[in-house]
Amino acid sequence: MQKKLLYINGLPRTLIVNLEDSLAKVLREQLLLTGCKVGCNQGQCGTCSIIMNGDVVRSCIVKMKRVPDEAHITTIEGLATPDELHPLQVAWMAYGCAQCGFCSPGFILSAKVLLDGNASPTREEVRDWFQKHRNACRCTGYKPLVDAVMAAAQVLRGELRKEDLLYKPVDNKIYGTTYHRPSAVQKVTGTWDYGADVALQMPQGTLRLALVQAEVSHANIKGIDTSEAETMPGVYKVVTHKDVKGKNRITGLITFPSNKGDGWDRPILCDEKVFQFGDAIAIVCADTEEHAKAAAKKVKVDLEMLPAYMSAPAAMAEDAIEIHPGVPNVYFEQGIVKGEDTKPIMDRSDIVTVEVETYCSRQPHLPLEPDVGCAYIDEEGRLTIHSKSIGLHLHHAMIVAGIGIEPEKCRLVQNPTGGTFGYKFSPTIEALLGVACLATGKPVSLNFTMYQNITYTGKRSPASVYCKLAADKTGKLLAMETDWWLDHGPYSEFGDLVTLRQAQFTGAGYDIRNIRGQGRTVCTNHAWGSAFRGYGSPQAFLASEIAMDELAEKLGMDPLELRFKNIYRPGATTPTGQVPEVFCLEEMFNKIRPLWKAAKERCAKLTTPEKKRGVGFSLGIYGCGLDGPDSSEAWAELTPTGVTIGNSWQDHGQGADIGTLTHAHETLQPLGIKPEQIKLIMNDMAFTPNSGPSGGSRSNVMTGNATTVACQMLLNAMRKADGSYRTYDEMLAENIPLHYDGKWTASMCTDCSPVTAQGDPFPIYMYELFMPEVEVDMKTGKAKVVKFTTIADIGTITNKTVCDGQIYGGLAQGVGLALTEDFEDLKKHTSLVGCGLPFIDDIPDDMEIIYNITPRENGPHGAAGTGEGPLSAPHPAILNAIYNACGVRIYAIPALPSKIKAGLDALAAQK
Amino acid sequence: MQKKLLYINGLPRTLIVNLEDSLAKVLREQLLLTGCKVGCNQGQCGTCSIIMNGDVVRSCIVKMKRVPDEAHITTIEGLATPDELHPLQVAWMAYGCAQCGFCSPGFILSAKVLLDGNASPTREEVRDWFQKHRNACRCTGYKPLVDAVMAAAQVLRGELRKEDLLYKPVDNKIYGTTYHRPSAVQKVTGTWDYGADVALQMPQGTLRLALVQAEVSHANIKGIDTSEAETMPGVYKVVTHKDVKGKNRITGLITFPSNKGDGWDRPILCDEKVFQFGDAIAIVCADTEEHAKAAAKKVKVDLEMLPAYMSAPAAMAEDAIEIHPGVPNVYFEQGIVKGEDTKPIMDRSDIVTVEVETYCSRQPHLPLEPDVGCAYIDEEGRLTIHSKSIGLHLHHAMIVAGIGIEPEKCRLVQNPTGGTFGYKFSPTIEALLGVACLATGKPVSLNFTMYQNITYTGKRSPASVYCKLAADKTGKLLAMETDWWLDHGPYSEFGDLVTLRQAQFTGAGYDIRNIRGQGRTVCTNHAWGSAFRGYGSPQAFLASEIAMDELAEKLGMDPLELRFKNIYRPGATTPTGQVPEVFCLEEMFNKIRPLWKAAKERCAKLTTPEKKRGVGFSLGIYGCGLDGPDSSEAWAELTPTGVTIGNSWQDHGQGADIGTLTHAHETLQPLGIKPEQIKLIMNDMAFTPNSGPSGGSRSNVMTGNATTVACQMLLNAMRKADGSYRTYDEMLAENIPLHYDGKWTASMCTDCSPVTAQGDPFPIYMYELFMPEVEVDMKTGKAKVVKFTTIADIGTITNKTVCDGQIYGGLAQGVGLALTEDFEDLKKHTSLVGCGLPFIDDIPDDMEIIYNITPRENGPHGAAGTGEGPLSAPHPAILNAIYNACGVRIYAIPALPSKIKAGLDALAAQK
Repeated sequence: MQKKLLYINGLPRTLIVNLEDSLAKVLREQLLLTGCKVGCNQGQCGTCSIIMNGDVVRSCIVKMKRVPDEAHITTIEGLATPDELHPLQVAWMAYGCAQCGFCSPGFILSAKVLLDGNASPTREEVRDWFQKHRNACRCTGYKPLVDAVMAAAQVLRGELRKEDLLYKPVDNKIYGTTYHRPSAVQKVTGTWDYGADVALQMPQGTLRLALVQAEVSHANIKGIDTSEAETMPGVYKVVTHKDVKGKNRITGLITFPSNKGDGWDRPILCDEKVFQFGDAIAIVCADTEEHAKAAAKKVKVDLEMLPAYMSAPAAMAEDAIEIHPGVPNVYFEQGIVKGEDTKPIMDRSDIVTVEVETYCSRQPHLPLEPDVGCAYIDEEGRLTIHSKSIGLHLHHAMIVAGIGIEPEKCRLVQNPTGGTFGYKFSPTIEALLGVACLATGKPVSLNFTMYQNITYTGKRSPASVYCKLAADKTGKLLAMETDWWLDHGPYSEFGDLVTLRQAQFTGAGYDIRNIRGQGRTVCTNHAWGSAFRGYGSPQAFLASEIAMDELAEKLGMDPLELRFKNIYRPGATTPTGQVPEVFCLEEMFNKIRPLWKAAKERCAKLTTPEKKRGVGFSLGIYGCGLDGPDSSEAWAELTPTGVTIGNSWQDHGQGADIGTLTHAHETLQPLGIKPEQIKLIMNDMAFTPNSGPSGGSRSNVMTGNATTVACQMLLNAMRKADGSYRTYDEMLAENIPLHYDGKWTASMCTDCSPVTAQGDPFPIYMYELFMPEVEVDMKTGKAKVVKFTTIADIGTITNKTVCDGQIYGGLAQGVGLALTEDFEDLKKHTSLVGCGLPFIDDIPDDMEIIYNITPRENGPHGAAGTGEGPLSAPHPAILNAIYNACGVRIYAIPALPSKIKAGLDALAAQK
Repeated sequence: MQKKLLYINGLPRTLIVNLEDSLAKVLREQLLLTGCKVGCNQGQCGTCSIIMNGDVVRSCIVKMKRVPDEAHITTIEGLATPDELHPLQVAWMAYGCAQCGFCSPGFILSAKVLLDGNASPTREEVRDWFQKHRNACRCTGYKPLVDAVMAAAQVLRGELRKEDLLYKPVDNKIYGTTYHRPSAVQKVTGTWDYGADVALQMPQGTLRLALVQAEVSHANIKGIDTSEAETMPGVYKVVTHKDVKGKNRITGLITFPSNKGDGWDRPILCDEKVFQFGDAIAIVCADTEEHAKAAAKKVKVDLEMLPAYMSAPAAMAEDAIEIHPGVPNVYFEQGIVKGEDTKPIMDRSDIVTVEVETYCSRQPHLPLEPDVGCAYIDEEGRLTIHSKSIGLHLHHAMIVAGIGIEPEKCRLVQNPTGGTFGYKFSPTIEALLGVACLATGKPVSLNFTMYQNITYTGKRSPASVYCKLAADKTGKLLAMETDWWLDHGPYSEFGDLVTLRQAQFTGAGYDIRNIRGQGRTVCTNHAWGSAFRGYGSPQAFLASEIAMDELAEKLGMDPLELRFKNIYRPGATTPTGQVPEVFCLEEMFNKIRPLWKAAKERCAKLTTPEKKRGVGFSLGIYGCGLDGPDSSEAWAELTPTGVTIGNSWQDHGQGADIGTLTHAHETLQPLGIKPEQIKLIMNDMAFTPNSGPSGGSRSNVMTGNATTVACQMLLNAMRKADGSYRTYDEMLAENIPLHYDGKWTASMCTDCSPVTAQGDPFPIYMYELFMPEVEVDMKTGKAKVVKFTTIADIGTITNKTVCDGQIYGGLAQGVGLALTEDFEDLKKHTSLVGCGLPFIDDIPDDMEIIYNITPRENGPHGAAGTGEGPLSAPHPAILNAIYNACGVRIYAIPALPSKIKAGLDALAAQK
C-alpha cells in the first residue's frame, strides 16, 4: 500500500492505495467517482477513459504504480456542473450520443483532450482519435459522436452558442423533433448510476457474490465440496442448489404446446448436470468481491464428463445422447404451409430457380456494461432484485417458482442499463441474486466481468437456412421452399419462438403465394439462445436476400428491379398469410432507385485492381410486438404540477424515457403542459404495471399506445362540457379520480400455427431497405463498408434523434454481424476484441438515413417501432456488395478476410 | 431496505438504503459525499448540516425514513466548484473561519439557507441562526464566522465583489497580512479529507476495528474470553494483549529523573489491570464497523473490582492502594525555591497577605472531530499509521517498543485533523492501530465515537493550587508561597512536566523576588492527563490572578494598578529566575488602562438589580517551547518551479501550513518568488524531519526558525558573488546541491531544577492581558461574558487572520473553562453538550484584540507563538468580573450558575 497525493478534479486528495490496483478501481471504489465506467476492464473499450496529466488514459489498465505522484486527474465529475455543462456534454445530449450512455463519460473526456490539442479537427481526425484511444460504442454507430464533437468544437471556437445546440420546443411541440431524452443530463455527467454503481453505493454489510462456474460444456455432477471455500477470509456463505428453496429451474414460460420439452430445463444452480460452459454451480457470498472470488476458486466440483455437442449437427447426430434426458435434442419443429404445394411449381420447366444455404452465426451482443445486479429484502418484505432486466414482469414469472417465493413477495427493478441489445430478454443473474439473498438474509450484489458476460449470457441463435426460390422468366416469384435448423443451446426458453421467426421472415417483403418449409430447434451444449435485435429475422433474411440476388443474376435482372417487381402490393400477403398493414415498399424503392444507380456508378469509378468496390442491396422487415394479441399497460396521474406517467418500458438505451415522455406529451397537448411538467416513474414492479418486455420493437407501439390510452383517459376525465379542461384543484373539488390505468392490446393479431405458420402475428411492421458500399482489399480479403444508405419506413418519427440513433446503431451491428462478430470458439471469442466488436474505423462515417413516412393506423401517433429494422437484413446486403465488388459469394457469416481471400483464390484458380 | 430517489446536488440518484440509517451515513458511506462531516453523531454540533428541501438539517439525526421521497439535498460538494466558489466559501477563507475546518461545510450550508431567506441579516440574526441550528465551532470563537456571513451577504447583495474578499499580495508581501491559508480551499469545499474520510476511501478489504473497553475505572483482569466474538459475522480476528509483539506499554519517554515511576505504565491493551474507564482491552477486526462493534459486545472480560480513586485526595488517602503496584500514587514532586526564604517575610507585620486555594477542572478538549486513524504496511514494508497525531516523531518514540517493531519500520503520518487543542500530544489510538495491523497483516481503520473521544482521551489535569502573596502597603509584592497537587490520572506521560508548569507560571508576570512552594503529581483512576492549550498555566494563573485581585481589594487598590506596579520591568525575573526576553507589559498596561476605565464605567451604567455587570482583569503568560534547549528541523529544496519546504509542523487547525508558507516566503523574498511557487510537504515521517510536537506554542518559533534557517541556507547557496541569485538551471549547471536541511535549537535555554524550579526554560514568552465584561443573572446565578477585550504581545504578527483566530478561539475556550466545561461525572460529562461546549450564544460577539508588537530577537521574523496565550488566564479574569459584578468569589471552576447562585444566596443571608 502507498500513500499517494493526486490532484483529482482540481483538488489535492491523499489516498492510500494498493499499487497493483488499477486507477479505475481506485477512482470508483475509493473515491466513488463512478462517472468512470468500467466496461471490459482490459483496456479494449475506453469506457473508463479519464484525463491524466493532459492525456486520455484507459484507467482500467493503468496500475497505481504507473500513476505519477501528484498526477492531475480529471474525471467526468470534474468536467463541469449540472448547471453549467461543458459544450461536449451538451452536444452529446443534442446529438443523441448518450443512448445507453455507458460509454459517454469516456468519450467526452477523450474528446476533450482532442479539442484541447486541436481546436478544429476534421471528421477524419476525430475518428482517428477515437480509434487510437479505443473508444468503443455499441449503440450509436459512431456517426452521432463525430457530429457532436464537431458541434462542440464550433461552440468552443465561438462559432456557435452552446444554448443553440439543444432543441427547444417550438409551440410546445416535441413529437418528431430532436428533443433530448430526459436521462441525457445524468448520462453525460456520469451520474446515471448503472448496476455496478448502485452496488458500490449499497449500505455497508452488503454481501458481494462470486460464481463458481462450469469450465466444461457437458458433464454430470457427482459432488460439490464447499468446505474449504467456507473457511476462506470474508466468506459468509457458499450457496449451492441445496440452498435453493424452490424448483431451482427457470421456466421458458410461454413454451409452445408442440414443444417436446416443458420449458423447465434451465437450473438456477446446477444440481445434476452441467449443460454449458459457464453454468453456475455455486455462489460464494463474502464481504468483498475479492474475497468471494478467491473462495470461489476453492469450491471443488466432481464432474463426470459427457460428450459436448457444440453445434446443431453434432447434437442431431444419431449417436448423440439427449442433453436433457427424456427430451430429444430436436425438441421443436415448425412448418410453413402457404398456398399451393410448391413441388409442382418447382418441377415446371418454364421457371428459374435458385437454392442457397446460409449460416448465420452466434452473434454476441457485446454491450459495454457487463451483467450486474443486486438484491435485498425491501421494507414490505419483498425480495427485491435490481438488474438489467428488459422484461421485469416476464422475468418475475420465469424465476419465482425456481427461487421458491410467492409471486407477490418478489419485486424486480431495472437499473440504468448499459446496453443489452436483447440478451436481457432472458433472465441472467436475477434468480442467482434472489437465491443468494434469501439464503443469506442479506443484501447482495453480483458483477460479471466482461469475460463472464461474454461466455455466460445468451447469444443470437445460429441458424442454417436453406431457401429455394422459383420465378418465372420475368422475375415474378412463384414459390419458395425452405428448411432450417436453429442451434438454441441447452435452454429452451423462447427457442420455439425464434424458430417460428424463420417461417415468418424468410422471403418476407415479397409477394410469394406458395411456400413450403420446415424448421427445427436443436438443443446443444453451446451458449443458450437469447433475444438479439432483429430476433430471428437476420437468420431468415440472410438466406432469402442472398437468394434474391442470385435469382436476379440468373435472370439477368438488376437485383433492385427483381425485388421491386415482387414487393408487397395490395393483394399480397406476408409469408404467414397476413395482409401488410401498409404498402410502403413501392414508394421506398422509388426513392432509393436513383441512389442505387449512383452507387453503382460510384463503385465502378472508385474500384481499383487492389481495392474493389461494390454495392449491395437487401430488404428487411420486422414485426412490432410479441406474436398474437400482445398488450401493454401504463398509467397517468394528474398532480399539482403536471402529470406523472408510470410504465415498465424498460430502457436499454433505446430511449424508453423519451418515448414515454413524447407520447404522453403529444397526447396531453390539449392541456398545454410542458415536457418538464411530465414526470416519469418507470421500471419498478412496486410502482409500474406490466408493460411487457422491451424487445422486438414492440414498446413504442404497445407501451406507446398504453401510455397514450392512459393519458387519453385522464384527458377525458378532465374535459368539461364546454371542451375546456379542469384544473387539478377542480378535479379534487369535484372528487374526480386523478389516476388512470391504461391498457392497449393488439386484438387484431393471432398466433401462427406451428404446422402452417399461418396467422396475423404483428399489428405493425417496419420496413427497411439497405444499400451498403463495400471495399474489398484484394490482397488480404478484408472487406470494409465505406458507405451505407438506408431507407426506412417506421411510421411517424416519434423522436428524430432516437430514430436516427437506433438506425445508425443497428447498421453498425449489421456491419459487425456481416464481417467480424462471432461467439464460437470458447478460447478465442472471450473479449470484445476477440468477438470482433466494431470500432469507429470499422463503421462508415458516411451513413445516410432516408425516412419514408407512412403513418400506422394502430401505432401511437402513427408510429411503428424502430430498433429491429436496421438489424433485420443489413448483412445480406453487405455480402451482396462483396459479391458485387469481387465476385466472391459468402454464405456463412462473419465474412472474415480469410474466407473472402479463400474465395478470391478459388476464383483466381478458376481463371 | 428501501429504494429511494433523491435529488442530490441537483441530480436524481436512486439509492438502496436502510431506513434506520441516518442521512449522514448514507451521504458519507453510500455516496462518499464526505464533505458532510460527522462530529458528535447526535445532533449537537452541526458539522453534518446539509440542506434538505431548503432547510438546514443535521443529517446525523435524520433517519432515512424521515427523508421525503425525491427530497432535494445539497451538500457542500454541490454548492460550487473549486474554480467558482460560493461567496460564503470565499468569505470563510478570507476571515480565517476554516481553522481545523471540520465545522466549515456545515456552517457554510447553514449560512446559505439563512441568506437564502434573509439577504440582509443583522449580526444578532446570524448568531441566533447558528444558535438555533446548533452549529458549533471549537476553534474560532465564532466572531470570524459572523464576520464572514456579513461579508458574503454583501457580495450576494452586490455591494462587494467576491474577488475583493481575499487579500492579494501587494509587493509580494504576505508576512503580517491576512493572506489565506493554503488548505482553506479544500476545507471550504469539503475535500480536506479527515481521518474518517481517509478511512472510507481505503481499499476494499481494509479491516474495521472496534475496541472492547473497560466500563469500570479500576480492576484486576482475571481473564478475557474472545471465543464467542470470534464467531460473529464478519470478524477476522480479535486482538488482545497476547497478540502484542512488544512491551505492550506506551512510554512517557521524557520522564524526569526524579519521577518515581519509569514511565512504562500505560498498557496498549490491558493485560493485568484496568486503570481507567475506557481502557482498551481488546480490538475486534472485522469487515465492517457494525460487525466489529457487534462482536466487541461479545468479548467477555472477567474482572476483580478494585477501589477507584477518582480524585487526587482520594488517591493520596492513607489507605489507598498503589494504582501501579510498586509506584506510590504521588509519584513526582516539584519544588520552587527562589530568592530568600519566604517565611520571615510572611511573618512581618508591615505587610499585607492574601491566601487563595483554587481548583482548576478536568477541562475536556471537545474537538468536533472524534479520534480516528488507520494503519497499513507501506511499499517499503513500514508499519504506517495515520492519525491526528500532533507529535509524529514523539509518538513514534513512545510506541515502537510497546508495539514491538524496529523504529525504522514504523512511519507516522498526520491526517488532516479536525481540532485537538492538545489532546493529541498524547498518543491515543496510534499503538492500537499498529498492533491490529501487525496482528492481522491487513490495513485497518478505527473511528472513535464522540462518546469514546470524550471518555477515552486525555484531559487537562485538574489541579488544586494554594497561593499566598505578600506585599507591602504600597502594593509591592514581596513574596509568594505555593502548594499544589495535580491529578494526572493513571498514566504518567508528561505528568511531571505539567506539575513543573505550576512552579513556572503561578505568579508569573510579576516581579516576585522570593518564592517557596511544592507540588506533586498524583496518580488517580480518572482520565489520564494530556496536554491542553495553555498547558499547566491555567491552573497556575487561576490561583495567582485571583490572589492578585484579592490583594488589590485588601490594599484598596485598583486591581489593574496593583498589577501594573508589579509587572516585569528590567531587573525582574520570572518565577524560575529567568530574565524575560522582552519587557512589554508596561506598554500593554498603558494601552489597556483607558479601556479598563471605560469598562468600569460601562458596567456601572449597565448594571441592573436583575442583571449585574462587572469587569475583570488578569494577566497571562506562556513560554514558547518545550523546556530547555528545544529544537526543530525543516528542509528547503529548489525546484524548477519554485521552492519546496518540508517539515513536520503538525496542523490541528492552528495554521501550520500558512505558518510554514509565510516564514519561507518571507525568508525567500530576495528571490521574489510568489506564495504559489512554494510547495509544502508536511507531516509524514517518510518525507519530513523531526520538527517536534505541535504544542506549547512552540511551532511558530521552533519550526518557523528551522524553516527560516533551511531557506536561508538555500539562499546562501544560490547567492552569487554580485549578490544576485542563481537560477535552478544555474544551480544544476554548477552542481550545487538543491536540498538544505535546516535546524534551529533554543540553545540559550536550560532545564528547570526539580528542587528549585530555577532555570531558563523558554527562549520566548507571549504576554496577554484579559478584560472580560460579565453579566450575572441574579435570579439564576448564570454568568454570561458579554464583551471581551484582550491585548496581546506575541512579537510580530506572522499572519493576522491566524493570530486573530487563535486569540478569539482561545478566549472562547477560556469562557468555557471558566463557566461551563468539565469532565468529571462519567455518566453526565459524555457528550459535547453534557461537557459544556460553548455555542455561539455563550461567546460574546464583541471581542476586541489589541496587538502590542514587540519583535522577538529569537523569533522567526520577530514572532513569538500565539495559541497558548489566550487560554493562559482568561478564566480568572472572568471570575474576577463575576466578583466585580455581584460580589461572589468562585475559586473552583467551572463557575456554574448553581455555584454562583449559592454564593449569591450566602451573601444575601449575610445581609
